This record gives sequence, C-alpha cells and structure tokens, in this order.
Amino acid sequence: MTSTVEPLSGTVEQAEVASRADAFVAELSEWLRIPSISADPGHHADVTRSAEWLAATLRRDGWPTVEVWSDTAALPAVYAHWPAADPTAPTVLVYGHHDVQPADLADGWSFAPFEPQVVGEELRGRGASDDKGHIAMVLLGVRAHLAATGATAPAVSLKLLVEGEEESGSAHLAELLTAHGDALACDEIVVTDTGMVDRETPTVCCGMRGLVDLEVVYRGAAVDLHSGQFGGAVPNPVTELARLVAAFHDDAGHIAVPGFYDDVREPTAEERAAWAALPFDEPAWLAGSAAGAMATAGEAGWSTYERLWARPTAEVNGLHGGYAGPGHKTIVPHSATLKMTFRLVDAQDPARIKPLLERFVADRIPAGIDADVSTGGPGVPPLICDLDSPLVASIREAMGIALGAEVLPAREGGSGPEALLTTALDAPLAFLGVMLPADRIHAPDERAVLPLLLRGAESVAHLWRLLAERVTS
Amino acid sequence: MTSTVEPLSGTVEQAEVASRADAFVAELSEWLRIPSISADPGHHADVTRSAEWLAATLRRDGWPTVEVWSDTAALPAVYAHWPAADPTAPTVLVYGHHDVQPADLADGWSFAPFEPQVVGEELRGRGASDDKGHIAMVLLGVRAHLAATGATAPAVSLKLLVEGEEESGSAHLAELLTAHGDALACDEIVVTDTGMVDRETPTVCCGMRGLVDLEVVYRGAAVDLHSGQFGGAVPNPVTELARLVAAFHDDAGHIAVPGFYDDVREPTAEERAAWAALPFDEPAWLAGSAAGAMATAGEAGWSTYERLWARPTAEVNGLHGGYAGPGHKTIVPHSATLKMTFRLVDAQDPARIKPLLERFVADRIPAGIDADVSTGGPGVPPLICDLDSPLVASIREAMGIALGAEVLPAREGGSGPEALLTTALDAPLAFLGVMLPADRIHAPDERAVLPLLLRGAESVAHLWRLLAERVTS
Repeated sequence: MTSTVEPLSGTVEQAEVASRADAFVAELSEWLRIPSISADPGHHADVTRSAEWLAATLRRDGWPTVEVWSDTAALPAVYAHWPAADPTAPTVLVYGHHDVQPADLADGWSFAPFEPQVVGEELRGRGASDDKGHIAMVLLGVRAHLAATGATAPAVSLKLLVEGEEESGSAHLAELLTAHGDALACDEIVVTDTGMVDRETPTVCCGMRGLVDLEVVYRGAAVDLHSGQFGGAVPNPVTELARLVAAFHDDAGHIAVPGFYDDVREPTAEERAAWAALPFDEPAWLAGSAAGAMATAGEAGWSTYERLWARPTAEVNGLHGGYAGPGHKTIVPHSATLKMTFRLVDAQDPARIKPLLERFVADRIPAGIDADVSTGGPGVPPLICDLDSPLVASIREAMGIALGAEVLPAREGGSGPEALLTTALDAPLAFLGVMLPADRIHAPDERAVLPLLLRGAESVAHLWRLLAERVTS
Repeated sequence: MTSTVEPLSGTVEQAEVASRADAFVAELSEWLRIPSISADPGHHADVTRSAEWLAATLRRDGWPTVEVWSDTAALPAVYAHWPAADPTAPTVLVYGHHDVQPADLADGWSFAPFEPQVVGEELRGRGASDDKGHIAMVLLGVRAHLAATGATAPAVSLKLLVEGEEESGSAHLAELLTAHGDALACDEIVVTDTGMVDRETPTVCCGMRGLVDLEVVYRGAAVDLHSGQFGGAVPNPVTELARLVAAFHDDAGHIAVPGFYDDVREPTAEERAAWAALPFDEPAWLAGSAAGAMATAGEAGWSTYERLWARPTAEVNGLHGGYAGPGHKTIVPHSATLKMTFRLVDAQDPARIKPLLERFVADRIPAGIDADVSTGGPGVPPLICDLDSPLVASIREAMGIALGAEVLPAREGGSGPEALLTTALDAPLAFLGVMLPADRIHAPDERAVLPLLLRGAESVAHLWRLLAERVTS
C-alpha cells in the first residue's frame, strides 16, 4: 500500500506502520462489518458488538486497562488506559466514536455499505473514515510508537474514550463525563474526527462551529380553510412562516437577529490571508458530497472557507405546511412547521443566542397566528483551538513529518462534543484527522484513502514522542 | 317546519312549498345517504347511483325528458327538459351538481356524514347544502310552481344540468358542453351553488373569482447536504423558496407581480358603499368554517368582503422541503416544492396571468438552484353578473317575495364553472342559492337550514313566473 501522492518519511515509525498495513486493513474491515448505527434502536445490539470488538482488540494490543462502559443511559462506550513508564509524563486522552451514520443500499449506495471492499487506494464502507477508520488509525499509531521506541509503555500516559452515540448527537456524553470524571482526568485531549482541506495540502482542524436548534410552529384555524371562502382575508400560516424565514437574512446574507453577532470576532487579516492561501477547488468541493451542489452562495464579503469556518449561519433544515399531494388543493393551510439550526462561531454562547432567537420570532408573530417556539436542548458551544499551544504545535509537527509538508491551520464547519469535553475535563483540546472532503462521510459510498490513514497512524506514533519530548525538554 | 326568522310571504307558492316540506326532507335525506364522492374512485359507483336516484325522482315529478349522460369521460350527469306550453317562452337552464366533497368521521364529524339527521331547523349531512340540498330545492320549486299555476308545464322552458364532478374540478364539463351543446341550448342560466352573507340579510351572489395554479420546485444538490460541511456556503432550496413566497406580496399585502392588476377594475364607490352596508359579524364569520380562524388579515385598504369578492389573491396551498420528523436533522435540504393558487377578479384572464407568474418566478431563480415552474391547466376565468340584466332583477324580486326583504347584491370568493357555462352556451348567467357561511360546506358537520331551503324553493317557484311575465310584458 504505497501512496502515489504522499512522500515516505523514512522514519522508523513509518516503517513500523507500513509493516502492519495489510493486517490493519483486514482488522478495520472486520470492524466495518458491524452496523453500529446508534440512531436506529434496531441496531443497538450492533453498537454493543462494536464496543466489544474494540475492547477485545485493545486487550490483544496489550492495553493494561480496557473497559466497556454501560453503566449510564449511553450506548456502550469503550475506555482504555495505558500509563507511561515515567509517572511525570503528561496524560493524553484520545476521543472518538465507534457508532456510524445510518446507511442503506436504497439511499444510493453503489455497494452494500457494511460489506467493506478495497478498491485501489480506497477502503470503502460505512465508517471507513468516520470514525472507525480514525480510531483504528490511532491503535495502529500506538503499536508503531511502541515498536519504534522498543518500550513496553507509551512515552505519554494514554487514555482512550470511544463513545457509541456521536452520530445521534452524543446525548449522554455529559452524563458519561460526570460518571467517569476521575478515570478520564487528563492534561490534553486529542479528537480524531476531522480532516484536511484536500489531499495535497495537509491541514489541521483548529476550530468547529457551535449549534442551536430552533423550531417554530405557526397555527391559524383548527383545520384547513377553503381558499375561495377565506383566501385573502385571513392569515396564511405557510406564507407567514415563509416571511419569517425570509426575515432571518438581509439582502447581503447577514443574519438579521439583533445582537446575534455581538460575540463574533472577525478573523484577523493574518487568518484570512492564511485561509485564502489554502487551495480551494470549487467544482471539486461542490461535488465532494457526491451530491452535486451547483453553486456557492452565502454571506457577502466572505470566501467559502470563511463562510464555513468563521461565520455563523441560520439554516432551514425543513419547512412543511399544507397540501403535498398530486395536483392542487385550494386551501388556506391550518399550520406550518419550521426547523432551523444556527451554527455559531467564536464566543457565541448558545445560552445567550437562544433568547435572541426567541425574541426575534416573538416580535414577528402575525395577528391571527398562534406560535410555538422552541430552541431545544442546551446547544453546542463553538470551539477554537489555541494555535500557540504546545499541543497544536506538536500535532502540526507530527503530521508534518508523516505527510512531508507544512501542516496549515484550518477549521471545520460542523459541530461536535469538543466544547463539552474540554470544559468537563478542564484540558486543552486539539484535532488530528486525515478525512478528505470527498470521503462522503454521512453520505452513500463512504470511503477512506488508505495511504492517508497510514500517514495518520504514523503522525500518531510521532505525536506521543513529541509530546513527551516537549515536556522533558 | 315554520321558520322563526323568515316571515311567510302568504303567496300560493309559499303554501304549496309548505305542504310538501315533510316529504321534501324525507326525499333529500334519502339522497344524502348516497356517498357520491367524485374525488374518490372508490365512490364512483355511488356517483352513478346518485345520478340514477335523481333521474328517477325527476321522472316521478313528470319531467318529459330525463337522461343520465355517461357518454363522455365525465362521471354521470343528469339532464332533464320540461318545455313550456308557450313555444315563445324563454328557455332557462339550471346548473348544479350531485357529487359531494369527501367526508369521513375521522375528519372531525360529530356524526356519520352519510346518515343525515334533522336537528331543530337543520338538516345535517354531507351534501345537505352543497349541492344536493339546492338541487332538491329547485325540484320542490318546480312542483310548487306547477301546483300554484295549475298548469301541466312550467311558464318557461326548463332545462336541468346536474353534473357529477364539480367537487373534483369539473374536469370534463367542457367536453360535456360540447357533446350536448344542442340539448343544453338556452336563453339564460341559473346556477344553484351559492349563498347569502347571513340569514337576516338576503343577498344574491353576483360574481365569483377565477383561478390559476402555480407549482414551483426548487432543487439544489441531488441529495440532502450536511449543514456543517456545506451550510452557509451553498444555496438552501427551502430558504430560497420561502424568499420567493415572501416576494409575492409587498408590505401592504398587494401582489408584487408586474402587470398582475392590469385587468382588475376597482369596485365603484357605489359598490363599495353597498357592500359596506351589508352586515359583517367578524367573530361569526371567523367561526363560520367550524375551524376557528383567529383574525382577519389581507391587503391594506379593503374590507373583508372586498378582499374576498373584488380583490385577487396569491395563496400558498402547500410548501414542503427538508426534514419533517421528530427532533432535528442538520441538513441543507436538496429540494422544496411550492403549490399556490391565484384567485382572479373582473377581466383578469388566466391565459394572460400565467406568463406573468412564470416570468416573476423565472426572474428570481437563484444561482445554484434548478427550478421547475408549472401553471397547470387552463385555469378558471372570473365571472361578474350584469346587475342590470332582467335575469338578476327577476332573481332578486323572486327571492325578495319569498324572504320578505330586499335582496342585496353580493359576491363570493370561490371559483366554479360559471365562466365556462356562460361562454360555451352563449347565455347570461346568474345565481340563486341560500347557503350560509355557517353551513360548513367542504368541512365536517355540513348542514342546511331547512326554512331557508323552503324559502329558496319558493323563490324558484316565483322565478319561472316572473321570467315569463317579464318577457310577455
């Protein structure tokens, strides 16, 4: 499995990874056959099987402590601990997940999603990249690190937390962190669930957006009204809700909610220049979802990367009201339902944003319309890594060795449990991952690029050494 | 069955109607037990049974020509002809329908919709008012007319066309009118499918709105996109379609489509004053649908009656896109579908309005969105009666005698096949009906007010006499 793109580093770690490549593919393929779909109760037994598979693999690797946690409401999570020989070495917690997104042939897969296959450089199957591929990458990296150093324990104390509910919203992660706070205590957190902007340009994710939900239900009459008898003389809940949607942005695509941008720090000229220097192949990016978006669009004055990484959004996820069958039905619909999510950046706090959204809606409820407004759960705070921290510097150095190029800071537009982790465990957090935009995570025909997973494993192997050296130097 | 509201006219016709009231209720109840739902293929046999029931009743009444027409693609229509003794008497065609709206207990009926019952002054059941009750009213009126005059034939030549597809859009009426143009030839048309603004204020409908459909489908990517990976940087078809909906009206509720109002004649000060003098009980009107609309709304500067009768509308019947399940799904939806109907007034011509709507949509299609735009079938032209015509004058006089009060001109906001009838048969058209806004036609718990149906039958009995006198005078 030699990459035609990434140069070989020639390090001992690289050789140790390469010697284990075939076994790695076989092992990961076995794991991918377990359809650990956390969103589907019919697959919860598979989530348990997946956790047990991972625990058995870790025990075979020699991790001294391996536990499957099922003492909370969460689906089984796997915890492991391998202390360093040196008791003063830092403790690093690696976070990832072993559950996967739903996948069904009928969704448009070109092969059975849980029958993984190697095609050229790619390993194809649900979870190949997100996130089983990346957890397997970490395990391989630890093996290569131990083989390269000849030691019986890693250079830093390693902890693993691989949860089973990330793809269904990490609903019980806070409970898990509280119940097992002592076991999870650490100095630094590495999250393995992100990627690079493209294969030729190694980047490291240094920020994720936060998230707040909004659901608005407008109700007029108790049942649909005849549009001949009432049309034009009573409020139409669908029209009114469409007007609310239109009101959320001004003509330049700025979000019109008063106070919404108060805690948004605009990126510095330096950051903007760095992102502008990253390659951006718009046609490839648009096609990256395998879904064929047709054009970029969004807030005026910002690039696509900036729109995704540094700017908040007000996105409609669904709007439904009235007749949906064939032909026409002459009604004034009785109700309409709007579901939105707002992505947050920088210091935007879900707890501060929610009342702003609620007030924005409340200020616009038309006469004759009853409105139910809900902003759901606690939301997800944004997370920005400290680019000057030793942890980010070590990751960039480790990936730089393995990938043979400078690793540039980037961000991602999604939202994960990172802010929760860093707050609950009171430790700095950074990302190490080699997913590509074309990996089709969450979509049909997910794949991972195997040479990149191997470089990622090598990066992991270098990272433990570099982190230990940085402390002792 | 003595009304507590309407005074008795003391005419022979009134007495002849009254003497037949009990038989009328029994007969109509029998008809209402046939669920002649034209929109439901599972009930098409019932539509045929309903036509046969009506034909048999007409034959018992002595109509010389009675036919059930099933020679076109239309569901069975009933035709009858009773020539006047005087060959120079005018021929009047009465149009109505014997099919009914769908009705199911599960829709919120408080009784079985096809098991009619008399409660106080009301006959309750699907079709009691719209339109079987009104056709039965015409039959009773003809009997009373003959009894009152002692003649063996009516004073004018009468024709009846009772179609079986009105509630599913009169899809084959044009075909029927072409196939049977000779049989249907007439001097005047009376439509029996309208009502009065309220029980205390006799009015006659003198206008109906027209109708044009619009369906717009917006498509972005081929499948839903992850809103973290793409949100804020690609167009959202649901948001864009909501913006299109919002663009159809200005802040005052005027329709913003260029040229849309070109053929709208504003009502005269005299018309506006007459309508303003009509009673309008807003709470009763809002509750009239049994649906409890909560407020009036609409175009600034116009009353509710004017909004319904004299102003066109742009009404959203349905808007659907994206996620509709429980909780949230963080997607940029791949498509959205909008269904609208536009009610037209005065000289607005569907054939001229359609390209205006298509251009309005085409001018606003955002980059990155594919749009399908359709304006459906030929549409329905509006119809305004000539208030100075002998037909309208005779109807007002006939109803005035029966109801004991001046009959004021009003309109309705719905759309029917009137423009088609008057054009195809080249004859003036007017309305005679006693439905009330609270009759809940098209809604659960439809009912008719029996004393009003009897006054309606008496009006019919007077009308044939008045029309004959007007010609011979």
